[in-house]
Amino acid sequence: MSRIPEVEAALRPDLRGRTAYGAPQLDVAVQLNTNESSYPVPGEVIADALDRLRTDLEGLNRYPDREFSSLRAALADYLAMQSGVRLSPAQLWAGNGSNEVLQHLVQAFGGPGRTAIGFTPAYSMHPIIAETLGTRWVDGQRHAESFDLDVDSAAEQVRACDPDLVLLCSPNNPTGTALPFAAIETVLAAAPRAIVVVDEAYAEFARPGTRSALELLGDHHRLVVTRTMSKAFTLAGARLGYLAAHPDLVDALRLVRLPYHLSTPTQAVAEVALRHAPALLATVDAIKAERDRLVEELAAMGLRPVPSDANFVLFGGLADAAETWEALLAAGVLVRDIGIPGHLRVTAGTPEETSRFLEAMGDLVPEHLDHAQRPADRPAAHRHHGGTS
Amino acid sequence: MSRIPEVEAALRPDLRGRTAYGAPQLDVAVQLNTNESSYPVPGEVIADALDRLRTDLEGLNRYPDREFSSLRAALADYLAMQSGVRLSPAQLWAGNGSNEVLQHLVQAFGGPGRTAIGFTPAYSMHPIIAETLGTRWVDGQRHAESFDLDVDSAAEQVRACDPDLVLLCSPNNPTGTALPFAAIETVLAAAPRAIVVVDEAYAEFARPGTRSALELLGDHHRLVVTRTMSKAFTLAGARLGYLAAHPDLVDALRLVRLPYHLSTPTQAVAEVALRHAPALLATVDAIKAERDRLVEELAAMGLRPVPSDANFVLFGGLADAAETWEALLAAGVLVRDIGIPGHLRVTAGTPEETSRFLEAMGDLVPEHLDHAQRPADRPAAHRHHGGTS
Repeated sequence: MSRIPEVEAALRPDLRGRTAYGAPQLDVAVQLNTNESSYPVPGEVIADALDRLRTDLEGLNRYPDREFSSLRAALADYLAMQSGVRLSPAQLWAGNGSNEVLQHLVQAFGGPGRTAIGFTPAYSMHPIIAETLGTRWVDGQRHAESFDLDVDSAAEQVRACDPDLVLLCSPNNPTGTALPFAAIETVLAAAPRAIVVVDEAYAEFARPGTRSALELLGDHHRLVVTRTMSKAFTLAGARLGYLAAHPDLVDALRLVRLPYHLSTPTQAVAEVALRHAPALLATVDAIKAERDRLVEELAAMGLRPVPSDANFVLFGGLADAAETWEALLAAGVLVRDIGIPGHLRVTAGTPEETSRFLEAMGDLVPEHLDHAQRPADRPAAHRHHGGTS
Repeated sequence: MSRIPEVEAALRPDLRGRTAYGAPQLDVAVQLNTNESSYPVPGEVIADALDRLRTDLEGLNRYPDREFSSLRAALADYLAMQSGVRLSPAQLWAGNGSNEVLQHLVQAFGGPGRTAIGFTPAYSMHPIIAETLGTRWVDGQRHAESFDLDVDSAAEQVRACDPDLVLLCSPNNPTGTALPFAAIETVLAAAPRAIVVVDEAYAEFARPGTRSALELLGDHHRLVVTRTMSKAFTLAGARLGYLAAHPDLVDALRLVRLPYHLSTPTQAVAEVALRHAPALLATVDAIKAERDRLVEELAAMGLRPVPSDANFVLFGGLADAAETWEALLAAGVLVRDIGIPGHLRVTAGTPEETSRFLEAMGDLVPEHLDHAQRPADRPAAHRHHGGTS
């Protein structure tokens, strides 16, 4: 949009001409575009949250605990249960969504005159957060067809730009595959002064045997693992992202966080949810089953799904992704056009939703297939159609 | 604190050696240190909020409305009622506390190579937000004794630094007094390309006849007014700050805001609270009465209170502010040492709390009085003791 001259002239020069991030929020029956959980929050969790809020709301006249101490302890307990890695509460940090903890990291360790690298296509907020904080962004490359990140290639690309921050994403969004575990230590060695962030937003959906970067925290004090309650915890609307790192690294984030950034209700809802982790995570297996079904059935249609450790599947083999996106929308199914030619991304929903999508997609095949089956062009437009979330 | 070398070396150079913002969060009977409301949220508001949350929590699996459209409409309605100025929802914007909307403003219009000016002592987060985003901060000066900001002096200081951002604060925190209304247009003229922000966090407590900068929005498209629900709305724990400006200026903030930054519960609680504005604001008159009583009784003790349009009073005339702060704490009363020699800041609480403070203070007078009654030294340490909030 064009803005009035007074505002446009006052805007930071490097922001002019940029478009705001934003997947379309459309009122469609089957919403499989932002990797939300399709399952509502269970009644027992709501009841407990309301009980807690009944007390907490009365005290809203007071600022929240600036250190969110009990929430950090609860997050540490959850990670110990989920990954087997026992951390201290001082190693935990949280924000209003993992975007905010990523912002804290970039603000503390990136910024003007500094460089961050990620491997595209990855979570589209990584470059946006870096660049809107004045950090130079280097678009590292993945394999153009498989979207795999080769360990040696990652190390070489990191060495070439001598970054202050490396943003890895495992399982990777929007492609779905977890990183080879060896890549993390290789990248740490290749970037000997950088803060290395492994964004594990989708960790709970990984296939058996996938290891978490949390295991490496004890040995690597420049390593950060970010997580979120938006996906497996079925709490996208609660906005609670967090990270685990060395306590001194966490302490440095206090220099840039806004005081009292986590509201009393946010802390309350997250703590109650963590207490109910098994109930909230009960749908993870069902979602993984639908994800595997998507991979299988899309392949059977002649499309090219990417193996996935997440709650979504990226698939190629389309003649015109934008056209297929529109046709699916017309059929009442909202998926995501990530801007990778010939590809779309679909979230694994309930069995019914997944069926609705597969039926709609089946109706479009073979007409929408790319019969030339040429390899996907190198993706350049990963911020297209509002990026990934 | 000292951090491990790997973290310290990775930290942005200009952040090294900084201390994190933070007023002490102490468990003291009478807490009059952060300008919270001492009044709990009324039962009728809690009941309505719980009703709304009962529905909203179930849908937490979905991301919140990224545009928080109904909240913006409710904020516009409230401002029309409170100030008589009717704005469109497109002119409203909100964040997790006014700190976050200030951060959006600095990120969009400040940053590296840019300059912001404020007039010290003012809200201590202003320079912190500016500097942690790489913006050069100019500490403008107020009158050293009265803390007034003279209109001509403000214009001259603004012209001298040719800023990109001007942060005014009216009523000013921590001094309490509203700005002369003429200062706003004078500053806008003196900074012909700057975004001029008037932080009106305490507007609802202003003395009769105090005008809001909202009245000037129609004529000035570089003007921004920030507000908060933390103070008069008695909702510090809900973290809801907002701003009003030209729709195009608001639109520019979308380039830097993190998507879905306002959680579903945050939007829900704020909307319910706005519907109950009269009930929540019912204590404003009582708080103002205590504030006026503080000014009167402190003056009668031989201290020097600053006239206040806010829910707190800054007073001078102490021999050693830190010593008096400790003595009050020992008496069970927590106030704020802002770092201005000879001065402390006290929030107007309930009548009982105010009495407790006045009695404790009375016990310390005349011993703690500065009998020399020399004018306060020029304050340099406005970030001392964790700043102001």
